[in-house]
Amino acid sequence: MILDIINKKRIGEELSYQELDYAFNGYLNGDVADYQMSSLLMAICINGMSDEEIFALTKIFIDSGDVLDFSDIPGIKVDKHSTGGIGDKTTLVIAPIVASLDIPVVKMSGRGLGYTGGTIDKLESIPGFRIDLTDQEIIKQVHEIGLVVTGQTADLVPMDKAIYALRDVTGTVSSIPLIASSIMSKKIASGADKIIIDIKVGNGALLQSRDDANKLSELMIKIGEVYQREVRCIISDMNVPLGKCIGNSLEVLEAIDVLQGKEENNNFVKLCHELATEMVSMGKEISKKEASQLVIDAIQSGKAYQKFLEMVTHQNGNIKGIKVSSQMVPIKAKSSGVLKKINALELGKISLALGAGKVYKNDKIDYTVGIKLEKLVGDTVKKGDVLATLYVKKNVPDIKLDDIFTIR
Amino acid sequence: MILDIINKKRIGEELSYQELDYAFNGYLNGDVADYQMSSLLMAICINGMSDEEIFALTKIFIDSGDVLDFSDIPGIKVDKHSTGGIGDKTTLVIAPIVASLDIPVVKMSGRGLGYTGGTIDKLESIPGFRIDLTDQEIIKQVHEIGLVVTGQTADLVPMDKAIYALRDVTGTVSSIPLIASSIMSKKIASGADKIIIDIKVGNGALLQSRDDANKLSELMIKIGEVYQREVRCIISDMNVPLGKCIGNSLEVLEAIDVLQGKEENNNFVKLCHELATEMVSMGKEISKKEASQLVIDAIQSGKAYQKFLEMVTHQNGNIKGIKVSSQMVPIKAKSSGVLKKINALELGKISLALGAGKVYKNDKIDYTVGIKLEKLVGDTVKKGDVLATLYVKKNVPDIKLDDIFTIR
Repeated sequence: MILDIINKKRIGEELSYQELDYAFNGYLNGDVADYQMSSLLMAICINGMSDEEIFALTKIFIDSGDVLDFSDIPGIKVDKHSTGGIGDKTTLVIAPIVASLDIPVVKMSGRGLGYTGGTIDKLESIPGFRIDLTDQEIIKQVHEIGLVVTGQTADLVPMDKAIYALRDVTGTVSSIPLIASSIMSKKIASGADKIIIDIKVGNGALLQSRDDANKLSELMIKIGEVYQREVRCIISDMNVPLGKCIGNSLEVLEAIDVLQGKEENNNFVKLCHELATEMVSMGKEISKKEASQLVIDAIQSGKAYQKFLEMVTHQNGNIKGIKVSSQMVPIKAKSSGVLKKINALELGKISLALGAGKVYKNDKIDYTVGIKLEKLVGDTVKKGDVLATLYVKKNVPDIKLDDIFTIR
Repeated sequence: MILDIINKKRIGEELSYQELDYAFNGYLNGDVADYQMSSLLMAICINGMSDEEIFALTKIFIDSGDVLDFSDIPGIKVDKHSTGGIGDKTTLVIAPIVASLDIPVVKMSGRGLGYTGGTIDKLESIPGFRIDLTDQEIIKQVHEIGLVVTGQTADLVPMDKAIYALRDVTGTVSSIPLIASSIMSKKIASGADKIIIDIKVGNGALLQSRDDANKLSELMIKIGEVYQREVRCIISDMNVPLGKCIGNSLEVLEAIDVLQGKEENNNFVKLCHELATEMVSMGKEISKKEASQLVIDAIQSGKAYQKFLEMVTHQNGNIKGIKVSSQMVPIKAKSSGVLKKINALELGKISLALGAGKVYKNDKIDYTVGIKLEKLVGDTVKKGDVLATLYVKKNVPDIKLDDIFTIR
């Protein structure tokens, strides 16, 4: 039976709901071996999936676990997802902004993957911060303060966890249909009414081409329609890292600066504004212009930062305990000119080498290490200027300056 | 590293010798997991392989084990391979014919696969017959009688054994490049100077289209050129079973009848003549016309059958001990007319259900069961005529007559 299914997809035929169900649930319950599932996943990667197949797979994913129900919490629940990038700490800024405007936010975030950091890892750099809230605790906290950012519960789309782990080691990550069903099944199962998705494109992202990003966007909007969820997508650049900081504690501190209105208008601040505006516009059903003003007010009034502090306190975190390494290494410009490019992927690799992420499953993350950019794209630099500061512990990787910074 | 290789093939790029070597030897030594190899195999199935890749893979296969050397045996060693079909016992007939004409034949044969029987299984229906000769015993016997038909030695292309077992359970069997390197690596490693390959096409075969058969043929001839081996291919029909009998003992008895000149000119007898003629023409470097006459003489003179008996004796077999089940079930025509079609695949399934082959790895083969066709394609039949006799033991499968025999 599983061979018939694999062979069908191998020659590019469409699989029925029953066939997909047999294969994927068979994998979860052990009837289908991992070497058979990986063969099927590769056939899907190369031959693609029809919309009907993608809808079926999304349903099978959702049905594999619990579906959270926030219908007794008043208001439109808006969720946000990012396909992942270097220096992407937007959740830490926009979730408090949106919640401070009385739109309930329940955000289940993930851990780092490849060179990209994860929101949950970042939050764990706040000493004591709990990321393992139960369903009951989540619902209690949303009722009390309207904001929760936590890890995915074990029963949220367990099939996605199993399939993702296999895709990660079998060269079958880059499939638009598989990415779409993975993201959308998790968003729908976590109980959101409306969803904004930040699709990143560039060398530091899963997707390299705008074409692929457009396809993914269309597909996720279509899946949303099937489940009566409004889905909006924005496509954002990930050739350059987001903001100034990469590394867990450093990124939390940068997010706090943005919430306090201390940062100028760099690419990270702009993206936060854009995403928060979309979420507020969806959650309050108002124009983007009105939403944009509310977002600005939330920061200027200090309400957004207050909401962030409330969340940290509710989840047991001690904001004063955040630490960065005291051992710093300056990276200096070898020539003068204008900083034309900063390579996101290369910085992601360095951050990983410093210990900010995991290379192997059992590695321990060092929350205190990372990179702070002292110059951003467009800045004028003189030879000898500090371009970036590395916050290091024991590992200091070799830096090939020209691979990272382009000065002309 | 393995992920880079899988991803490269996923997007259709060419792999280098080093990359293929890393992946396939990595699989053999455990560095590459089975779920990674199956993913790569599926990418190869769908995206294909260049000639250079196929040559590289064939070399990697050959280098994985021993290469037999028959250079001290005088004469051109000619080997034959069939891609497998229902009722295909040609080896049992042509190997003795060719050897009786003083062309040394060392044939390493395989076991049944799917619905098709294997020469080794058939030979095992001769009580005592040894199919596990060592390299030394093989060489000794070729010197003594010029003919050996035995199983593959453990060290003959071990990589093919490992990869084939994985392909069999991951829907990655139907790949022309993988089929070509599998066959050619075994033929080259088993020491043949010249090779004739019988490519079967039809519902009872691995390949369904003549186009695929032509591609496979061209590819194997090219691989042969790289190794200075003359390769000839014939493409033969496998929509109808070969000859009259399906099932191990029955097929050996039918082969003996053909060697004794008792059979009329049916599709099996014709194919044997064609293949033996090619082999004799290659082995003696003479025209096909001359070779054809020698083949006819070998049978009429009784020399071919004598050579068969010599082989059975040398390999410990007792030809008088061959048994067929005494429990017979006649299959009768429900209408009159001309027998237009006999469905090979359906008969293969029935033969398997009777116990002539293995459904699961640990099944035991019943050598005494099988099917004997009493009418062949083109024969006139009357309602009530016996179309076939089933030789059964405990399992008597349901027969859907119309799926097997088309009478009009």
